[in-house]
Amino acid sequence: MNQIAPDILDRLRAVVGDKGVIADPAEMRPYLTEWRDLWHGVSPLILRPASTEEVAEIVRLCAETGTKLVPQGGNTSLCGGSVPFEGGDEIVLSLSRMHAVREIDLENDTITVEAGCILQDVQQAAEEAGRLFPMRIAAEGSCQIGGNLSTNAGGTAVLRYGNMRDLVLGLEVVLPDGRIWHGLRGLRKDNTGYDLKQLFIGAEGTLGIVTAAVLKLYPRPAAVETAFMAVPDVAAAVAMLGTAKALSGNQVTTFELVPRLGLDMVLRHVADTHDPLEGRHDWYVLMELSAGRDTGALKETMEAILVEGYEQGRVLDATMAASEAQSQALWKLRESMSEAQKYEGGSIKHDVSVPVSRMAAFIAEASEYVVDLIPGTRIVAFGHIGDGNVHFNPSQPPEMDKQAFLDRWDEVGHRVYEKVRKFGGSISAEHGLGRLKRDEIVQYKDPVEMELMRRIKRSLDPQNIMNPGKVLNPEG
Amino acid sequence: MNQIAPDILDRLRAVVGDKGVIADPAEMRPYLTEWRDLWHGVSPLILRPASTEEVAEIVRLCAETGTKLVPQGGNTSLCGGSVPFEGGDEIVLSLSRMHAVREIDLENDTITVEAGCILQDVQQAAEEAGRLFPMRIAAEGSCQIGGNLSTNAGGTAVLRYGNMRDLVLGLEVVLPDGRIWHGLRGLRKDNTGYDLKQLFIGAEGTLGIVTAAVLKLYPRPAAVETAFMAVPDVAAAVAMLGTAKALSGNQVTTFELVPRLGLDMVLRHVADTHDPLEGRHDWYVLMELSAGRDTGALKETMEAILVEGYEQGRVLDATMAASEAQSQALWKLRESMSEAQKYEGGSIKHDVSVPVSRMAAFIAEASEYVVDLIPGTRIVAFGHIGDGNVHFNPSQPPEMDKQAFLDRWDEVGHRVYEKVRKFGGSISAEHGLGRLKRDEIVQYKDPVEMELMRRIKRSLDPQNIMNPGKVLNPEG
Repeated sequence: MNQIAPDILDRLRAVVGDKGVIADPAEMRPYLTEWRDLWHGVSPLILRPASTEEVAEIVRLCAETGTKLVPQGGNTSLCGGSVPFEGGDEIVLSLSRMHAVREIDLENDTITVEAGCILQDVQQAAEEAGRLFPMRIAAEGSCQIGGNLSTNAGGTAVLRYGNMRDLVLGLEVVLPDGRIWHGLRGLRKDNTGYDLKQLFIGAEGTLGIVTAAVLKLYPRPAAVETAFMAVPDVAAAVAMLGTAKALSGNQVTTFELVPRLGLDMVLRHVADTHDPLEGRHDWYVLMELSAGRDTGALKETMEAILVEGYEQGRVLDATMAASEAQSQALWKLRESMSEAQKYEGGSIKHDVSVPVSRMAAFIAEASEYVVDLIPGTRIVAFGHIGDGNVHFNPSQPPEMDKQAFLDRWDEVGHRVYEKVRKFGGSISAEHGLGRLKRDEIVQYKDPVEMELMRRIKRSLDPQNIMNPGKVLNPEG
Repeated sequence: MNQIAPDILDRLRAVVGDKGVIADPAEMRPYLTEWRDLWHGVSPLILRPASTEEVAEIVRLCAETGTKLVPQGGNTSLCGGSVPFEGGDEIVLSLSRMHAVREIDLENDTITVEAGCILQDVQQAAEEAGRLFPMRIAAEGSCQIGGNLSTNAGGTAVLRYGNMRDLVLGLEVVLPDGRIWHGLRGLRKDNTGYDLKQLFIGAEGTLGIVTAAVLKLYPRPAAVETAFMAVPDVAAAVAMLGTAKALSGNQVTTFELVPRLGLDMVLRHVADTHDPLEGRHDWYVLMELSAGRDTGALKETMEAILVEGYEQGRVLDATMAASEAQSQALWKLRESMSEAQKYEGGSIKHDVSVPVSRMAAFIAEASEYVVDLIPGTRIVAFGHIGDGNVHFNPSQPPEMDKQAFLDRWDEVGHRVYEKVRKFGGSISAEHGLGRLKRDEIVQYKDPVEMELMRRIKRSLDPQNIMNPGKVLNPEG
């Protein structure tokens, strides 16, 4: 095991002081453990700097001594990008003490926050200021803005508001040599050279450490309509997305696919859930519209969408939430999908995207291809089909041994990704590469693109000290 | 004068054949002349390749021989980025023969076009397919998509739909070594490493040649409301933007500032223009709302916005267009502003941005500062204040000699940019750097950022053959 020399550790401790160091093994554990328990990293120290200057001083010291760093936010990532490897020669730099809301500028519709702000706290600060910060993901109660930025987080409001990348106007970044890039601009237009902030968004901490950001705020929606509709197949769901976008004029906030198989699992295992429709149908869509002004027109719009859907045979049955409680009940069906799947044994998760127009063909072909490999596998394909993003998560056949099923993860993944490739998609829509998909991506991405990525990495982090081995294989 | 060796020119000619070469001086002139007649470049040849493969072959040959290239679209840029220098050692590569619409995917809401497509043709192809491609700029009848991408074009619909950067899903790019990067993905979510397309958008052809793009389409608005309102001052205009955004829930498509001084120039010089309001007021706003469904609610929303404005004393008078013709008449007032200014003698143009919340203070202070330098100067500050972007264009004092006024361009610019800096703004909001602002930007931008830009340039174009000397000074 490589070791970081004791004098370097002492100097690092000195930068942040006692308050900023965690060295007790038990206290360190949550920072070293990937939250699904897939990886257990090793690190001599967790550093928790309190300011951008402290972050910069740490990175300067690491650059000087060739010491490796793993920047960490809420450690809720799904591809292992936020925990160190097992070698023991990486320092975890947690941004969690940097959680100030530095500024809210209402006329500019911006909020400036530090990287360690928890997403929910940003949502709440916006709400208290009479605005909306629209990013909405499952981990919002514990994930941090710096992580959201570094993974270009997605979630259930992308259809209307975009990914995290689309919500950023400016960044403050500590570069791999310890210099600070003061890019905290609150400008909606700025064409003065290369848009450097784009490099750090989605880079999973491999090109620098994001310490603060200027984020966009939006008007709070005054009217929200939620519907749950049964559709004959995925193609009909996609066609309904077109209808909904056209009739509402982009007021569709959420458009989520729910398969009957997954709904059954939820109804079976999750308390206080009920089938909102009477008959059994193979596919459902949870749809939300929102509008800034409550004129009653939104309800009318939703009704018009559903009526058109009935008439075209694309909606078989539907219900509209008549209250906030009913809306929450519908959302719960969608949001409990992952949890419910756990009670059904092993499942093999894929977060993939294809063009929206290929969604139906992709789900059909990939399902058949996986079931052909392991007969009896139950395909639970659900999620953000409005963005062309589906969580394609086969559950084990009921009678199969869990481990025997999970042992075939790579074979199943290979079949799913073959179909992703066929339909021009991505093997990681929302979750990034981290270490989980680092080597896999090389099989699916244009070698020219891989080489460009390596060039960018070498150019900004020539010593390879920033989250080394994540996203790109240093040997590759 | 440097010369490109005859055998290299012969080899370049051979790549594209006779159809793809312009060598006659008269025919070459439009490709070498900046459209405001500020610069007249020199080049031995204009190459007009017909395919991505031909572009790649040209670039490979240039990389092999160290020959410099200037990629060119519609040549409507405003900072000189699209014409060669005067040295005669650069080849102009015009994308104008590559103007195919490769694909329209309605369910994915995307259109795939080649770089040489004229913007208006893309708008029209979208319209014929029942969709909207929302980019709207003055040069739309002649500018090309490749140029729009390379300058990250803005325009009058940015408030609702974003800049060009926000309208792109994928790119095909010929890299400075002649390899093709096939990044034409139609995905709304793809987190598999660095988002390389962002590098080429807004890079003004200095990092590679964009040959095709996948662009986003939107539903066509079914209802549009246009209003022209008099406001007491810029601060009131900005406050009204907030009111309009909140009451409409982001249905504001356009929010343009019009100063009385500029309106007077339009009424004086442009045929068929009329003051739509009775009294004289210092400032006006042209506002447009649009909605996907025509329920009558949009008119009601516009009225509600204006009523709230009246009640708060932020709207002094207003008119709503009752017909398409009336709407066009209001737009004409805004769109004739630059033309009208020409008849008033010399004007010194600045395309700047600041946070929306600083707009009023910026305009007030910069105006005072410039008038203090040249008393009698008439400040015409107009444009996209909804994006924090104003065209700050002082017109000469009526009695002053035109050339004497224009001779003070740099002094005036310095004062404007000092105020831009003070308010955290950008000295080029929409138009890029090109050669016009290449050296100026160094005074206003963080040296760390300049150095990062240089590193990216060196990393992707180590020979500096792609539009050399634009954006970055190779000596600097």
